[in-house]
Amino acid sequence: MPHNEQFASDNYAGICPQAMDYMARANERDASAYGEDPWTQMAADRLRETFESDCEVYFVFNGTAANSLSLAAMCQSFHSVICHELAHVETDECGGPEYASNGSKLLVGTGPDGKLTPQSIEQMVTRRTDIHYPKPRVITLTQSTEVGTLYSIEELKAIREVADHYGLRIHMDGARFANAVAALDATPAEITWKAGVDVLCFSGTKNGLAVGEAILFFNRQLAEDFEWRCKQAGQLASKMRFISAPWCGLLEDDTWLKNATHANACAERLEDGIRGIAGLELCFPRQSNAVFVDLPGDVQTALRARGWHFYTFIGGAARFVCSWSSTLPQVDRLVQDIGEVMRNR
Amino acid sequence: MPHNEQFASDNYAGICPQAMDYMARANERDASAYGEDPWTQMAADRLRETFESDCEVYFVFNGTAANSLSLAAMCQSFHSVICHELAHVETDECGGPEYASNGSKLLVGTGPDGKLTPQSIEQMVTRRTDIHYPKPRVITLTQSTEVGTLYSIEELKAIREVADHYGLRIHMDGARFANAVAALDATPAEITWKAGVDVLCFSGTKNGLAVGEAILFFNRQLAEDFEWRCKQAGQLASKMRFISAPWCGLLEDDTWLKNATHANACAERLEDGIRGIAGLELCFPRQSNAVFVDLPGDVQTALRARGWHFYTFIGGAARFVCSWSSTLPQVDRLVQDIGEVMRNR
Amino acid sequence: MPHNEQFASDNYAGICPQAMDYMARANERDASAYGEDPWTQMAADRLRETFESDCEVYFVFNGTAANSLSLAAMCQSFHSVICHELAHVETDECGGPEYASNGSKLLVGTGPDGKLTPQSIEQMVTRRTDIHYPKPRVITLTQSTEVGTLYSIEELKAIREVADHYGLRIHMDGARFANAVAALDATPAEITWKAGVDVLCFSGTKNGLAVGEAILFFNRQLAEDFEWRCKQAGQLASKMRFISAPWCGLLEDDTWLKNATHANACAERLEDGIRGIAGLELCFPRQSNAVFVDLPGDVQTALRARGWHFYTFIGGAARFVCSWSSTLPQVDRLVQDIGEVMRNR
Amino acid sequence: MPHNEQFASDNYAGICPQAMDYMARANERDASAYGEDPWTQMAADRLRETFESDCEVYFVFNGTAANSLSLAAMCQSFHSVICHELAHVETDECGGPEYASNGSKLLVGTGPDGKLTPQSIEQMVTRRTDIHYPKPRVITLTQSTEVGTLYSIEELKAIREVADHYGLRIHMDGARFANAVAALDATPAEITWKAGVDVLCFSGTKNGLAVGEAILFFNRQLAEDFEWRCKQAGQLASKMRFISAPWCGLLEDDTWLKNATHANACAERLEDGIRGIAGLELCFPRQSNAVFVDLPGDVQTALRARGWHFYTFIGGAARFVCSWSSTLPQVDRLVQDIGEVMRNR
Repeated sequence: MPHNEQFASDNYAGICPQAMDYMARANERDASAYGEDPWTQMAADRLRETFESDCEVYFVFNGTAANSLSLAAMCQSFHSVICHELAHVETDECGGPEYASNGSKLLVGTGPDGKLTPQSIEQMVTRRTDIHYPKPRVITLTQSTEVGTLYSIEELKAIREVADHYGLRIHMDGARFANAVAALDATPAEITWKAGVDVLCFSGTKNGLAVGEAILFFNRQLAEDFEWRCKQAGQLASKMRFISAPWCGLLEDDTWLKNATHANACAERLEDGIRGIAGLELCFPRQSNAVFVDLPGDVQTALRARGWHFYTFIGGAARFVCSWSSTLPQVDRLVQDIGEVMRNR
Repeated sequence: MPHNEQFASDNYAGICPQAMDYMARANERDASAYGEDPWTQMAADRLRETFESDCEVYFVFNGTAANSLSLAAMCQSFHSVICHELAHVETDECGGPEYASNGSKLLVGTGPDGKLTPQSIEQMVTRRTDIHYPKPRVITLTQSTEVGTLYSIEELKAIREVADHYGLRIHMDGARFANAVAALDATPAEITWKAGVDVLCFSGTKNGLAVGEAILFFNRQLAEDFEWRCKQAGQLASKMRFISAPWCGLLEDDTWLKNATHANACAERLEDGIRGIAGLELCFPRQSNAVFVDLPGDVQTALRARGWHFYTFIGGAARFVCSWSSTLPQVDRLVQDIGEVMRNR
Repeated sequence: MPHNEQFASDNYAGICPQAMDYMARANERDASAYGEDPWTQMAADRLRETFESDCEVYFVFNGTAANSLSLAAMCQSFHSVICHELAHVETDECGGPEYASNGSKLLVGTGPDGKLTPQSIEQMVTRRTDIHYPKPRVITLTQSTEVGTLYSIEELKAIREVADHYGLRIHMDGARFANAVAALDATPAEITWKAGVDVLCFSGTKNGLAVGEAILFFNRQLAEDFEWRCKQAGQLASKMRFISAPWCGLLEDDTWLKNATHANACAERLEDGIRGIAGLELCFPRQSNAVFVDLPGDVQTALRARGWHFYTFIGGAARFVCSWSSTLPQVDRLVQDIGEVMRNR
Repeated sequence: MPHNEQFASDNYAGICPQAMDYMARANERDASAYGEDPWTQMAADRLRETFESDCEVYFVFNGTAANSLSLAAMCQSFHSVICHELAHVETDECGGPEYASNGSKLLVGTGPDGKLTPQSIEQMVTRRTDIHYPKPRVITLTQSTEVGTLYSIEELKAIREVADHYGLRIHMDGARFANAVAALDATPAEITWKAGVDVLCFSGTKNGLAVGEAILFFNRQLAEDFEWRCKQAGQLASKMRFISAPWCGLLEDDTWLKNATHANACAERLEDGIRGIAGLELCFPRQSNAVFVDLPGDVQTALRARGWHFYTFIGGAARFVCSWSSTLPQVDRLVQDIGEVMRNR
């Protein structure tokens, strides 16, 4: 792959310097295993400060594990989890949540721009209430969504109202939570526990780590004995410090937020560039670090021939995702190439 | 904790330089996610060369996951897994194998020096054959064992004979496999597939990585669709290269073997030192990188007060584990302190 | 509930005399437990004769268990099962298949008259082939379907072709299999293994038993150690003879077929009667023992006030199901009441 | 098998007349499915009266299901269940509890006469408290035990004290609960909730039903959404009345207690007879409906040749179990045969 010529995923990006620096620092001497080390304590404390909450904090290896284990802690096997039809838990975790919960069904709803609405949730809760159908127990929201859009604080609070009405818990898949915080004019607390979120999976990997996600239980009761769950599920790192110390790097000097702000800015520049090209339309409002464009198939092929990496989304649109390692010149080159290819058709 | 003054676990050691170097190299540019990168290909190929086998290779995050998922691939929920009563899967994985397999029971056997014998295995297989008891399907062996001892090639082959007789598969927990290879006068192939092992979990973490274990299926049929199993269980790293590239570092120039040989040598020196102290006895033959000594409780307390870290094993013995980062002067200081404390009683 | 005035479900009907007679015979003296009795042997043998196949036969307690356990035997947790959106496994088993398989996802397809088509199956298999999505492994067909329609032999064979092409197994939910055999001009063998079905769940409960379903593995390899699976899942009856002996009653003198033929004939008469009432239309072709009519809500209310029991189907239609215990005069009374209520609107 | 010449198991006995009578009554007309029928209501109410408790009542098909599902409701997958090494959940349910709970480990303790002691429980709870070992959450007691002995009220209360101290719940496997009530001078309430039992699995099958166990949640919080769990696990009978109506038969006129009292009396007579034979000793105090005798192997063989059916227990003893259908003359014939065989050696 040509150097840095990818907008495929923030998963393709590497480790940001601040995380790498902390990894080296954690490697200077031996330390206790299984999270009984000072780095893990520091990372958890910094997360609590960042979220202004005395929440319970756990670190696991990846996003599928974070989502699956936290959902399993929020319901029983005979309960169901309400999600959007585009949610990662439904489309890209290979049945991970069903596996970790030993059978909880995902109830798949719809809604514009990749977002559930209070109405769509209510409809899913009320259409069946008999014991032949799994009982809804959790709503999971992705912030920012799979298509890069955002739940506003008002939208979150409206969903919390429905949740309260029906006794549901709210889980947030924060694979790109940092990008959401950067994009919304809000604090981490305001778009999580202050808006009714019970549990957040906060991704470090997409933000600049090698590996590692944080699970934050604002509703501490749901975290009961959760460390045993992590251990049993193969999600307790023996050399935990190499996950938690890099998190310290992200959380120092707002690195996580700067990384996300930068990625969002790259995406905004890409949006602007694309808007200047005749014949193209964005599929979804560009609100965070992803841009979805209705590029014709032959245009996508031509771009790939020029060395660009990106995903083709369900339905055929091109998905461009920016990361902490994207650069503005790179965005400009991409825009130029798209423009050329479009004009040469 | 004082610098390097620990013999608690090879999990307390850091990342060895060769692994760190490859992590930095993998971080030089973006790369495809989920193992579709050149580092993962290289690491798998080097493992296949090392084992002289066209085996299937998968990377997961930790040892509990490696053991649990590979055992789940080797049996069904209503089957059982024969293990030694000291095996990590029984004593220290919090029901991980039972969870991943959805209920497979561990049948716990005994045997001297932490090793199962063909007789103990046969007895477990034959004592119950009715459907009210889970049907034995897998034998799991730990090499080197939890008490640092080794299965010889002859012992492995004798167990393979029993396995063949009863239609059982053989799993090897190689949390300290490198130490076993270094200690036995044998190649990796000779103490695995050539001796009848179907699947090996080969630990990188204890050998000098930050995170990451390799699962090698010498019996390729057992690996059918295993990549989906890893994905579902939250064990597919998105930025896989940061697990696999460090493996390349371990596998280059026999680093893994040198790390293990060094750890074994430190343990041998520790053994020699302890043998020179009146009143102490080793609990098990010292064969790899761990030394178990019947240190009285007050002696252990006194050593800890001097800043030494080590575990107290079931039954009260002191366990000292050496790693790639242990040093001979450190061993000598430990021996001296043990001697002083013993003499001062 | 007024005597026999129900068309709610064949689950509301009682035990047919022939089954009850065999239950009494099995109760004449003590017998070995867990299926080691002559009745269980006899029932299994009669099933093998009926199906002209040396298939493996197991008895479990109910339909959810039969479907869930047989599907679990046909795939792994990271595989998926293709079913119609109206299939009982999807709509009415509360996540039973996901639970028994420890997470297998159901891929929900569509098709007219409650039936999957080769095209719909192929589309589900091919739309995703990456490891982030569970790999399709099984197709499940309901015969007769949830809306009382039938797969013809030709349709089954066409689906088998797709299954062969993609390496899929075929499971048949035979909750009303007897009604299908009675309705199609075919033998049990012709619409199962001769048409490519690997495993059949054959319901006895809906056909006249108190409790008990038979699982027939025509593909005997899939039945490996299945008795242990039943035991572990709480589906091995200790006094098995009280499930199997009544099956002997069903299978003697074609009682099962006569029961089904009678139920189908009642439904046909109901269909005829409804066709004679102005303003009503059947929602699906009436092919077995169920009639779905687009009765307006007020008409349904009025009928219930007159003491009739029936279900309202998804979308609002009335569902009338006939059983071995339905009677033609009862059908005539129902038709008369529907007619009166319709005319009185 | 010769008529009634079995002391193998109360599972070999048939349906008692009172249960059969109610089955016939429930079969007189159609009734609503899935427990929405008057028989199920009546059976649950009679159980509540019998136990003087407004407990939650559920009916499932067999004992493995009753134990497995109730234990799963009492803990999470990463918790453990403390049981005696002879407990049915450990020895004869093929990993059912581990399956239903998705991995909960059974911690196996010892104690004389098949009973756990407060000391043995405490030892299991305290020996490990780290997250690498599943956290104890439930104690399961079998009343009467697998060897026919009884927990006294005082013993139960002493165990409750330990349970309270460590935050454990108490589950009772009542496979032969009726025999325990008949043998102890106590009410059902006194040896369950009044002595600290949270959940009881009360067997109907061994007491004279064809199929069917009741689960009683005295601790009602543990029953939250339990009906969904039953449904998902394939334990909700569609024609529920054929399980619950026979329960009405058992619960009317103290039939259940009379059945148990009779079985106990048969066992007592057997005990008396055996005590009169020189050279034999009972292995455990005969306290309910089972007698364990140290019959030499050749004696067992000779008895079987005379047509007697019984089990050989772990260790080689002969187990004779009496049921509602055993008769005193039959017991006398058995005693006579044992005496003859012993004298003829």
